Amino acid sequence: MTIKARLAGRAREVEAFLATCLRGRGIPDRLLASMEYSLLAGGKRLRPVLTLAWASMLGSDPARVMPFAASLECIHTYSLIHDDLPAMDDDDLRRGKPSNHKQFDEATAILAGDGLLTEAFSLMSEAALVHGLPPERVLRAVSLLASAAGGGGMVGGQAVDMAFTGRTEVALEELRQMHAMKTGALITAACECGAVLAGASNRDVENAREYGRAIGVAFQIVDDVLDVEGDTNTLGKPAGSDAAMGKSTYPALIGLGRSRELASEYTAQAVERLADYDGEEKSLLADLARYIVDRVC
Amino acid sequence: MTIKARLAGRAREVEAFLATCLRGRGIPDRLLASMEYSLLAGGKRLRPVLTLAWASMLGSDPARVMPFAASLECIHTYSLIHDDLPAMDDDDLRRGKPSNHKQFDEATAILAGDGLLTEAFSLMSEAALVHGLPPERVLRAVSLLASAAGGGGMVGGQAVDMAFTGRTEVALEELRQMHAMKTGALITAACECGAVLAGASNRDVENAREYGRAIGVAFQIVDDVLDVEGDTNTLGKPAGSDAAMGKSTYPALIGLGRSRELASEYTAQAVERLADYDGEEKSLLADLARYIVDRVC
Repeated sequence: MTIKARLAGRAREVEAFLATCLRGRGIPDRLLASMEYSLLAGGKRLRPVLTLAWASMLGSDPARVMPFAASLECIHTYSLIHDDLPAMDDDDLRRGKPSNHKQFDEATAILAGDGLLTEAFSLMSEAALVHGLPPERVLRAVSLLASAAGGGGMVGGQAVDMAFTGRTEVALEELRQMHAMKTGALITAACECGAVLAGASNRDVENAREYGRAIGVAFQIVDDVLDVEGDTNTLGKPAGSDAAMGKSTYPALIGLGRSRELASEYTAQAVERLADYDGEEKSLLADLARYIVDRVC
Repeated sequence: MTIKARLAGRAREVEAFLATCLRGRGIPDRLLASMEYSLLAGGKRLRPVLTLAWASMLGSDPARVMPFAASLECIHTYSLIHDDLPAMDDDDLRRGKPSNHKQFDEATAILAGDGLLTEAFSLMSEAALVHGLPPERVLRAVSLLASAAGGGGMVGGQAVDMAFTGRTEVALEELRQMHAMKTGALITAACECGAVLAGASNRDVENAREYGRAIGVAFQIVDDVLDVEGDTNTLGKPAGSDAAMGKSTYPALIGLGRSRELASEYTAQAVERLADYDGEEKSLLADLARYIVDRVC
């Protein structure tokens, strides 16, 4: 089976959980519809798949880790909804469909994001309280994830990105740092949390973190490359939008060829971090790292 | 010492913690400035004071509970920032100063709210990981607080409130339910989390919850009354703004006199829940409940 098909299988397992995880929580109908509109809009489910694979490779029962893994998709989805808002990137399309504030309205989109971020922490605590993971591990993972998603991570990265837009000179190191916060931190935390939830050794946790860091950079470089080379229909968003908005990108700073090379170097670093392991999860994680540079959307 | 002075003393202790709690987390300067602008803008610090008083009355060391208590103020502050946004209540003033999006910009205000909500969960996890509270208790409290703040609580209440605006007929029961979600849930959780963090019995936790529920309703009724009777300078926001926006309120539905009576009834219910306890914290909580109906801002 191709890695694409294997990943799609994993994504379906995550989606089965996501489809019900917001139900029975007393969320008013229209708000719930708005939250589920974005949460169930497809996507690779990369972050929960990473958490589950690392946890499983290091000995955890994936069924117990699932609520925590799902929380990562809630956080990722909230960030997309808020990033698309008129005051932010002002995007009308997301995955080929109207963005949340276009489908509903701006107030509902803000609240849907706030709600998804908050429910994420309900899901995390339920990984211990309902699904029996040890509370100490869950709290360590909550702390990691909150740091990765907060002002020193994803939210801070979006603030820095907004400040870049329209600036004519952004150095490669600034760009790298911004992406490390905006998208890298959450991908890194997805892997690291998997290891922490499995009660892994410091060495294993470090492997998970560095694997995540490396694929995070590779993923972002390829995202920039695809915005130049990709096709609007395949991407589900307008190609060339970065250039049109005057955004700094890897291809703009170091060229397309060097960007692709750099992505491959990071992929190799990620695969090296899997040397200690074997089995199906290791093979999935290795193939996933390689797939990131080969994908077309 | 008057209850107002005693509460101000408690608020200062909370503020001393809030003043540094976002530092050293790698938050970019302008975003940090925006988060602290609202977090350190004064206010009664009612929610953290409630958490600390309940935890302390039931045997916890307040110093250990402080990070968790502070997280409630982060969540409350984020909700005010987002509620003030142009797409929501579109308020230019908050506590007599420009609201966050007026002082900074809309994108920064959205991100400051997102950041405060996320850092709140960092603070909660640190109550266990750094300050030594038992992980099981902290996770139970995280779960309570996430439910209270999420789509079935505060965020959902704001969504319902937005849907009410401009509607000519809102029943008393609908109004009560909306406030129970929008403001009541977080005040209730503030009390309940204090009891849970102290490792209290089910009976104590229930007392904390019902005390919080009662003062939450009283607080909201008085808020509505003050919007009619109050003075713009004392309130720090335009008096009469509810009526101007066509908002349903207790005075509009049942009159000013009956509204004040109802607030007193809820206060009495709250005080009854303190019958099992004694000492300084009990006296503070009882006086606080009575003060809620006597306050002028």
